[in-house]
Amino acid sequence: MKINPRCVHCLLSRVHYQALLLTDDIDTVNAAVTAGLDALHRTYRPGEAAARISTAVHRSAYHAMGDRDPYLEKKVLSRELAQEIMPLARSLVGEGISVEGFRRAVVAATIGNTLDFGVDGFDVNEQDFKAEFRRLFDRGLDVDDTDRLLPLLDDVVYIADNSGEVLLDTLVIEQIKGMGGRVTLVVRGAPMLNDATMEDVEIHSIGAQVDRVLTTGSNAIGVCLDEAPAELVEAFEKTSLIVSKGMANYETMSEYGYRPIAYLLRTKCQSVADDMGLDTDILVARLVV
Amino acid sequence: MKINPRCVHCLLSRVHYQALLLTDDIDTVNAAVTAGLDALHRTYRPGEAAARISTAVHRSAYHAMGDRDPYLEKKVLSRELAQEIMPLARSLVGEGISVEGFRRAVVAATIGNTLDFGVDGFDVNEQDFKAEFRRLFDRGLDVDDTDRLLPLLDDVVYIADNSGEVLLDTLVIEQIKGMGGRVTLVVRGAPMLNDATMEDVEIHSIGAQVDRVLTTGSNAIGVCLDEAPAELVEAFEKTSLIVSKGMANYETMSEYGYRPIAYLLRTKCQSVADDMGLDTDILVARLVV
Repeated sequence: MKINPRCVHCLLSRVHYQALLLTDDIDTVNAAVTAGLDALHRTYRPGEAAARISTAVHRSAYHAMGDRDPYLEKKVLSRELAQEIMPLARSLVGEGISVEGFRRAVVAATIGNTLDFGVDGFDVNEQDFKAEFRRLFDRGLDVDDTDRLLPLLDDVVYIADNSGEVLLDTLVIEQIKGMGGRVTLVVRGAPMLNDATMEDVEIHSIGAQVDRVLTTGSNAIGVCLDEAPAELVEAFEKTSLIVSKGMANYETMSEYGYRPIAYLLRTKCQSVADDMGLDTDILVARLVV
Repeated sequence: MKINPRCVHCLLSRVHYQALLLTDDIDTVNAAVTAGLDALHRTYRPGEAAARISTAVHRSAYHAMGDRDPYLEKKVLSRELAQEIMPLARSLVGEGISVEGFRRAVVAATIGNTLDFGVDGFDVNEQDFKAEFRRLFDRGLDVDDTDRLLPLLDDVVYIADNSGEVLLDTLVIEQIKGMGGRVTLVVRGAPMLNDATMEDVEIHSIGAQVDRVLTTGSNAIGVCLDEAPAELVEAFEKTSLIVSKGMANYETMSEYGYRPIAYLLRTKCQSVADDMGLDTDILVARLVV
């Protein structure tokens, strides 16, 4: 996905937001915003890949803040929210392995993409995530290609998005494993935004539920192939299906040619929605072959 | 008023907003945003006057759009809304010249500061401005120094803010004139945002209601003394009271030492509200002596 001019102010808005998550020291906030502005000015070109720019901007801003992780508390909160929602999610998905169970698990995991912070107008409702979850589950997927995914589950590479959300992804992983498929889970190689990392895999003991866990090899936004380990690139080439969760993974994976690929996400910004030809604020499970 | 790091993304958001007011041609929008980003990168320094930066940013963005006026239609709409509201505003202010009439006129003129576009979350409600006007009039001023203005109305310099809004300012001007005061009205020297210019003075025939009309001498945000005509600087020095409408005039006039000065505005952004030590979204008539 290419950058849109509206991404310019949105990116700097997020840099400011996350600086305030870390500190109320105005000098540090200024340093982060100034660094983000520098990086944006250096990298912004119409037609450039959005994630290449956002990676440069966020890395610069992080560096200016001493490379501390501004989303630490938000990630802890996300994991708690996910753990609290799991009994309800499980009961909504139902028992056993089935075509309908898979579809419902995809719905739950896609709603999990709501566990996000810092996207204008789309912060998760911390106070009543359960009601929000139930409401979204009742509404279901607005784009639903789940039936077409079923024949492709033999050897899946599943790219996780956010902390907390990755726990809901295990509902889909259970279905794939139950159908006899292999699953390679991919998390971010180092902290970036509230993205899931190996820390999340360990906290939720997800390693035992999948065949393999790989990382993206760096803290780049989404997946940067230049920074990815050889096993991940090889996995992308050999897999029967890539499942790509969330907007940042969409932004990057849509730049490569890998097929088939399923994008599971909530459209939380106009640029991603436009690029997909969809409305904002809808639940999407789209297969691209 | 000094720039706050949150102004960075807000400024670029407005550049994007107004580019889309002018055109849906993506190249022009990109050119405007790129020019704004360049200017921001060139001028942004913590501690710098906010309006110095915003002037550079908007001028660059306007230049990239061929110096066409993106707010033309919004200004026409603002004037229509103001004309439609005037009978109600007049009836709420009441007949004749009086202390209470002056206060009510200040309330009406300050509500007029709602006639604005492009400030995040504070676009005027075009559909139901009358109901909004009545609601705000009933609520009244949250900061009300009008009683303290009364002894200072001998020779007033009144700096207008937006198109449309300036028509409501005439209610205050009528009271000042009725009390025997002189009024110098100041409008922007050239189109910038939806600010009132000589065109507004002519459309509403305001010239005959005041003793003199001056301009700021340029399209700078607020009042830039370096670009102001000598008569305006002299008027600031000799006046019995400066009345400064709106946020951009506050941002600039608060950088100079002129006293006494009355700020009439609705606090539509956090940076201005913080600088004034006030909440956002309140109606303010504050005297600084």
